[in-house]
Amino acid sequence: MATLGIRGTFFDFVDDPWKHPGRERDAARFHADGLMVIEDGRIADFGAFDEVSRRHRALELTHLEDRLILPGFIDGHVHFPQARVVGAFGEQLLSWLQVWVFPEELKYKDRAYASEAAMRFFDNLLAGGTTTCQAFTSSSPVSAEALFDEARRRNMRLISGLTGVDRHAPADYANTPEEFYRESKRLIGRYHKQGRGLYAITPRYALGSSPELMQACRRLKQEHPDCWVNTHISETRDEVSAVRKENPDCADYLAVYEKYGLVGPRFSGGHGIWLSDDEFARFASRGAAVVFCPCSNLFLGSGLFRIGRATDPRQRVRLAWGSDIGAGNRFSMLGALDEGYKIGMLNNASLADAAEAERNKISPYRGFWSITLGGAEALYIDDLVGNFQAGKEADFVALDWKAGQKSLAWRQSLVTAGRPQTMEQAADLLFGVMMVGDDRAVAETWVMGQRLYRKTE
Amino acid sequence: MATLGIRGTFFDFVDDPWKHPGRERDAARFHADGLMVIEDGRIADFGAFDEVSRRHRALELTHLEDRLILPGFIDGHVHFPQARVVGAFGEQLLSWLQVWVFPEELKYKDRAYASEAAMRFFDNLLAGGTTTCQAFTSSSPVSAEALFDEARRRNMRLISGLTGVDRHAPADYANTPEEFYRESKRLIGRYHKQGRGLYAITPRYALGSSPELMQACRRLKQEHPDCWVNTHISETRDEVSAVRKENPDCADYLAVYEKYGLVGPRFSGGHGIWLSDDEFARFASRGAAVVFCPCSNLFLGSGLFRIGRATDPRQRVRLAWGSDIGAGNRFSMLGALDEGYKIGMLNNASLADAAEAERNKISPYRGFWSITLGGAEALYIDDLVGNFQAGKEADFVALDWKAGQKSLAWRQSLVTAGRPQTMEQAADLLFGVMMVGDDRAVAETWVMGQRLYRKTE
Repeated sequence: MATLGIRGTFFDFVDDPWKHPGRERDAARFHADGLMVIEDGRIADFGAFDEVSRRHRALELTHLEDRLILPGFIDGHVHFPQARVVGAFGEQLLSWLQVWVFPEELKYKDRAYASEAAMRFFDNLLAGGTTTCQAFTSSSPVSAEALFDEARRRNMRLISGLTGVDRHAPADYANTPEEFYRESKRLIGRYHKQGRGLYAITPRYALGSSPELMQACRRLKQEHPDCWVNTHISETRDEVSAVRKENPDCADYLAVYEKYGLVGPRFSGGHGIWLSDDEFARFASRGAAVVFCPCSNLFLGSGLFRIGRATDPRQRVRLAWGSDIGAGNRFSMLGALDEGYKIGMLNNASLADAAEAERNKISPYRGFWSITLGGAEALYIDDLVGNFQAGKEADFVALDWKAGQKSLAWRQSLVTAGRPQTMEQAADLLFGVMMVGDDRAVAETWVMGQRLYRKTE
Repeated sequence: MATLGIRGTFFDFVDDPWKHPGRERDAARFHADGLMVIEDGRIADFGAFDEVSRRHRALELTHLEDRLILPGFIDGHVHFPQARVVGAFGEQLLSWLQVWVFPEELKYKDRAYASEAAMRFFDNLLAGGTTTCQAFTSSSPVSAEALFDEARRRNMRLISGLTGVDRHAPADYANTPEEFYRESKRLIGRYHKQGRGLYAITPRYALGSSPELMQACRRLKQEHPDCWVNTHISETRDEVSAVRKENPDCADYLAVYEKYGLVGPRFSGGHGIWLSDDEFARFASRGAAVVFCPCSNLFLGSGLFRIGRATDPRQRVRLAWGSDIGAGNRFSMLGALDEGYKIGMLNNASLADAAEAERNKISPYRGFWSITLGGAEALYIDDLVGNFQAGKEADFVALDWKAGQKSLAWRQSLVTAGRPQTMEQAADLLFGVMMVGDDRAVAETWVMGQRLYRKTE
């Protein structure tokens, strides 16, 4: 049994900071000098160095000095076959898909292209501090296989599945419902709960799905109730109108997914910008999650997600955050925090409700909780990852809070000259990382107790 | 007479791309293999290498390979004494000023602090590719002196001036109108048109200015009509309401500055988010400029600047772009382009006017024009800088279009494997730099023909 110890400064969460307005620190945990003991990739013990080290003599220690160690980031919504078309000019959602996205995704029928892309994809995620993602593939099973196989090779946790679309897509891109059902079924058998893989039944979005494709999803979910369901919802107003028009029997967008029995725990819909209060309430009561994708929502000009409304304690929606590469333009979830903060502030440019305005403010506590434990809870993987509780998988990131644009280090020196001694100092440094820094802060990324990324420059 | 030649791939502008919808390339100029000849810091000759090199035998050549060479970036709105408080959590404009900004700016009374800060300030600008800025100082003349002195030491073009405020600021921070007049007058004598320095009479903003302070500004402008005037305008709705309330004789915010004779060529007001159509029309007809500060407008949640309206050809407003450090969170104007693009797209989330929506799209042509020649025109310094026309000052930046987050290089390889051969390729690479890249793309920054920054890592 391989055992190792990681010594350093740790910051993680034990609760949701939105539940502690004005006392957000009560949701976090900080060890200026901490120790994590890892056995066979899992956290065996964790706490203050003085205390934990007494229980583990003769431990092989790795000391990550001058770093803030956080749980690995969770990206709840990312498109594997769009990694290369990130930053494509000038279109809003529906035309952007046609002009840029489908032509690139078509290449993922080719196994060599898909396999190389899968390596690049995880390289990019790790360089941004992400250790777990929920990913869309293309309409080709080859893309799903390439992605799951590469994740297994790296022993990385992955939620993914064949991405079905049979409408509003080029003919050579679309699936048929039959082949979608058959291939999904095969892939579930091959990858679901194999190693760290988890399968998500993945209708791309309601507008791209015929009733037959949706029925195939229902059948898959009935036959495999422990699978995840991953899709999009209410990203743009044009899309919402079109979905309503194509589904006259459904009162709103969410009702389409509800009609086919997909909405419940382990269901997540990306974006949710234009969800009504009633839809938020149904998300909350069913235990389904919205994945907030700040970079993408701004890049495509889709709109401003109502963070403060989704986090209303009376109808609290589970929220993961996503990069939404390639409509998002930053692979690192640190970029999502930057833009998410701004969306919260923009929401407050005109908002009378003071409590909702307060909930729109993405403090460093709320931000880093969202991309670690909060994301894990939303995706129902918090028994596996999300914080440093003993028994969880040892996925973590070591942040250099001074690495970024040239001005960052001077900004951070306003907080502390050396390493942080208090939780408040650490949180303020983390706010600097998310708003003034970027992926340069990611010094190392560890997966199941193994260092898979180390910044070289 | 020192003469040198810079060989490489050049991209600059000869016109405003907004004047060429659908044909934006007509506003740009591209040399895949170009040559710039510099004599005593000024551009003596420029064009295709084959042609220009024939006219200049025995030239000492610096070949900047695998770089895109653009005019140095122009930052039209930046706060020198806020360089350290960049990324300060949680407040909108008026409370942000009180909580974070005034306490930091107070330190700039101290000459040692201000002088060290001035070095850091220009280091940060140069690392982001900025060669010219229009900067606010603090209320202390010491800060203005430190800034002008450091700019002179580096031979950098600078527009700045003592920043006056006598209301809504802490007592130990405020100026008196008399001392503001006297010190401004002294500083104009010492710095205006000395070396590359240009003086801007700088009332911080209408809300911070008593009628007496505004009268001091009018008198300074009357006595020194060739000075610049730099201030803020219509940043938040609360601010606009407060200004209207304090100036019942003025029909709108701009009218306050008009009342004191400040609005005309070389006047610029930062932000302008909440300007009315009538105010835009008056900006246009008077030749005054708005400085658009995308990062700041999002960071403080101030609102979405109506780019497409300000660029309406029927009332075209001169626009510079600004980082607005420290409310902006990126020193490099590349960060401003990222967020400016997103603001344009967000404006289009709900906009019926197709022509205005088209003008909201920040193409790479519009973006890079805005932070080079466009900014120079807005600030009335286009006789000096902004493009590579012979006679202008040789300020330029060499961009490495593959340097940024790990995924950037792969994205750029969709455009071209080697260096760009066409203007379209170069523009597409530049879009990648502005949306997927960041300041890491700035490989070198040259000022008056001297290399003042070179990226080391």
